[in-house]
Amino acid sequence: MIGHSPVDRRSPFLPTTSLQFGVCCRKLQAGADRPSPAAAPERLPFSRVTPEDVAFFRKILPGRTITDPDLLESNNVDWLKSVRGSSEVLLRPQTTEDVSQILKYCNSRNLAVNPQGGNTGLVGGSVPVYDEIILSTALMNNILTFDSISGILTCQAGCVLENLSLYLEERDYIMPLDLGAKGSCHIGGNVATNAGGLRLLRYGSLRGTVLGLEAVLADGQVLNCLAKLRKDNTGYDLKQLFIGSEGTLGVITAVSILCPRKPKSVNVVFLGCETFEQLLKTFQLCKGMLGEILSAYEFLDSECMRLLNTHLKLPNPISDCPFYVVIETSGSDPTHDGEKLHNFLDEAMTSSLVTDGTVATEDSKIKALWSMRERVTEALTHDGFTYKYDISLPVERIYQLVTDMREHLGDRAKSVVGYGHVGDGNLHLNVTSPTKDPALLAAIEPFVYEWTASCHGSISAEHGLGLKKRNYIYYSKPSQAVALMGNIKAMLDPKGILNPYKTLPDDLK
Amino acid sequence: MIGHSPVDRRSPFLPTTSLQFGVCCRKLQAGADRPSPAAAPERLPFSRVTPEDVAFFRKILPGRTITDPDLLESNNVDWLKSVRGSSEVLLRPQTTEDVSQILKYCNSRNLAVNPQGGNTGLVGGSVPVYDEIILSTALMNNILTFDSISGILTCQAGCVLENLSLYLEERDYIMPLDLGAKGSCHIGGNVATNAGGLRLLRYGSLRGTVLGLEAVLADGQVLNCLAKLRKDNTGYDLKQLFIGSEGTLGVITAVSILCPRKPKSVNVVFLGCETFEQLLKTFQLCKGMLGEILSAYEFLDSECMRLLNTHLKLPNPISDCPFYVVIETSGSDPTHDGEKLHNFLDEAMTSSLVTDGTVATEDSKIKALWSMRERVTEALTHDGFTYKYDISLPVERIYQLVTDMREHLGDRAKSVVGYGHVGDGNLHLNVTSPTKDPALLAAIEPFVYEWTASCHGSISAEHGLGLKKRNYIYYSKPSQAVALMGNIKAMLDPKGILNPYKTLPDDLK
Repeated sequence: MIGHSPVDRRSPFLPTTSLQFGVCCRKLQAGADRPSPAAAPERLPFSRVTPEDVAFFRKILPGRTITDPDLLESNNVDWLKSVRGSSEVLLRPQTTEDVSQILKYCNSRNLAVNPQGGNTGLVGGSVPVYDEIILSTALMNNILTFDSISGILTCQAGCVLENLSLYLEERDYIMPLDLGAKGSCHIGGNVATNAGGLRLLRYGSLRGTVLGLEAVLADGQVLNCLAKLRKDNTGYDLKQLFIGSEGTLGVITAVSILCPRKPKSVNVVFLGCETFEQLLKTFQLCKGMLGEILSAYEFLDSECMRLLNTHLKLPNPISDCPFYVVIETSGSDPTHDGEKLHNFLDEAMTSSLVTDGTVATEDSKIKALWSMRERVTEALTHDGFTYKYDISLPVERIYQLVTDMREHLGDRAKSVVGYGHVGDGNLHLNVTSPTKDPALLAAIEPFVYEWTASCHGSISAEHGLGLKKRNYIYYSKPSQAVALMGNIKAMLDPKGILNPYKTLPDDLK
Repeated sequence: MIGHSPVDRRSPFLPTTSLQFGVCCRKLQAGADRPSPAAAPERLPFSRVTPEDVAFFRKILPGRTITDPDLLESNNVDWLKSVRGSSEVLLRPQTTEDVSQILKYCNSRNLAVNPQGGNTGLVGGSVPVYDEIILSTALMNNILTFDSISGILTCQAGCVLENLSLYLEERDYIMPLDLGAKGSCHIGGNVATNAGGLRLLRYGSLRGTVLGLEAVLADGQVLNCLAKLRKDNTGYDLKQLFIGSEGTLGVITAVSILCPRKPKSVNVVFLGCETFEQLLKTFQLCKGMLGEILSAYEFLDSECMRLLNTHLKLPNPISDCPFYVVIETSGSDPTHDGEKLHNFLDEAMTSSLVTDGTVATEDSKIKALWSMRERVTEALTHDGFTYKYDISLPVERIYQLVTDMREHLGDRAKSVVGYGHVGDGNLHLNVTSPTKDPALLAAIEPFVYEWTASCHGSISAEHGLGLKKRNYIYYSKPSQAVALMGNIKAMLDPKGILNPYKTLPDDLK
């Protein structure tokens, strides 16, 4: 499926010679005879970059047009090191006008463009597949305004999430989203991928907290929807088209976002439950008794705990249970929050919903308890080759998929583990085996996607579709919806130059 | 501008012979020589309903195809009695399939359709302008599912908001929105108009809380985006196209919505401030100290209080001040909420941000304090002919518009008053005069729109554009954005049969 020109001679996927690189290539090498739906399609007939093109870019972006292959290396490979592009030009605009000029030129020349933020995506959406020009937002990192009364921040798309968080915390506010990749990811990329993260349960999705954005369309036209208003019902809400469309409809250049006040008090508890049903009942109880201070309700199963014990030597902070819960509260009054938590724990214990538990109010213990949830991914990498799925399901069904998968795979898998965001109905299902195992993969897929579809779940809760999952979209969206997405793409980007091979399935092209 | 056929012979606007009817017709009669931008455009060349069409509808909707003019009367007139259509057919589908058959037929016959929910809109968007067929969702009123663990409700579009609220309250949940019109408005209409209301400060907009919807497109195609998931990043979020598009892109037939738990404790305080700056500082203090339990921060000025005293004989519950604030808290623990409120009031008084105040925890006193804010509209109707504006502004600017308008109008106005949702940056600006006064109107408009545009505000915070405000869209949206809206309309509804003459400006047609 890979083209044969000099530029295309390298496969866009790295060889899966090591465990580290293998995780995300699993679906990209599904047998020699039939390409996996995750594999790259053939290169589309875009123009190739000429010396004249480079000269043009050097003129409008002096010193910010990069062609040195060494400097381009990290922009050509995703951070999972599972997808490699072969772009020969990296552009680093500083202003919206720069982006506009770049796209206007590329559109007229039929040159494909890969918009890139912090390059922390997990689905191969943030790197070129072939020789697309990389348009990086790294130098577009100015905070434009912050209104300390309304909590509304506006900034350029290339601001690093953690930098925004630090800026806001000094002003007694926080960002409404938090991610593991916060040290690298750009807010523009967060918005372009509709990032979920750890605060979604409390503050909702970016579709509600992003109040405005500015985007440059494929033809270079600047679309200014950068409202700094909580309410605006004047016509269709165009900004929503760009949130979560993974750079395929326009390049986001600036955003405005509603930020919550910084909580004065944070507590974390770690609990054990006998059954998943009790874990769900505990969730209900906790929503009622903790109410407005509940900020996270995460879970892991006993298989996760076994891996944490075995591979990372992390001791179980409580007695052994089939299920574990991490609950976080964030509030404005430490005494009140402590009392609410105490009352909730009393009730949960008395009613035998939970069998054991421990509470943390100090930073170090809070971090230690959180690490039981956050380091599961790391423990998995020590267990073997890992097949990873990020599934959204009705909350009462999320563990059934783990149980069914375990039964379905039997001895073929080494470990089948489940963890994730119960509060958001988001399951991380992971299957390990001693080595890469095509037969095991064939047993997992399409089983996992069909199971998810049968519950009207989503095959990508928060990671998006990018390159790797684009052809699986039909498991979660009806064909009419996908066709309409294709029409929207054709309307906004008739030549298809923006982030080609991503998000939409090949059969639309 | 009105057509001349027998069907069109009545003006779509009622005569402004009474004070009651005059309020909303102000912009519709802006002088004999030049039609107001709010006036109806000429009838577009849609087909007219024939006896064969009625026979078809009777066949698919037996007993639910209404042609009796008396029965159609209330569906032809908006509830402000400011716009009158002349539709001769009202269809009352019960199922999505019914709606699909209706639209497929109307599209093939080029018959225009006015989708109608509870008909409580304020901008003439919910009634026909000419002879459009009225498609009412009134009989589509089934609750489909409710998940008491996740709080996710799915229901048909015609469910009345108050009925949903009662259903949920029995199950310890509430709807994330609340409106004055809750006894009549349909959830489908709420979503189609992106209704704001009283709970937006706390629970955010429908763009975040609506998790899925089902819509029927102009050609009868059913678009099923009725996900019941908090997270789903598989492709473009098509449901957002229908939220707030006022029935011009499709007919919403069902929605799924994330519902918050019912608060166990509600308190209301009524405070007085010397300056608007102090009122804003109090808002900041209150966001910090009340934090997660703050559920409303509303204001009215001393002119509003004068009208309440004069026309409704409502006594001021505190001493006279230039500005008044209504703060509501909703939380899960009455003791904690009471303490937080007490601490906040202590600080606000000690620091002299507020000069006087009173607290209510009992239902009757809560209602009495709320009525000081809610009955301003009623008081205004007794003051004279009222020119009403619903403006969204950066929160620190919202009262400046009132001050500037007062200065700008001088003696020409009887009263210039400001009240509204400080927490949402939403000002209700009202100007009264003894009688309808074209000279006064000419002094207000376009001044008010230009002022709003100069602050990057919105000329319609929550009411939408409908018929009356469609041509003012350029004050809040750039021409590129409006052109793109036109392209979306043309893509989804090429014949333009869905709610014509609404939302988009005439120059796009």
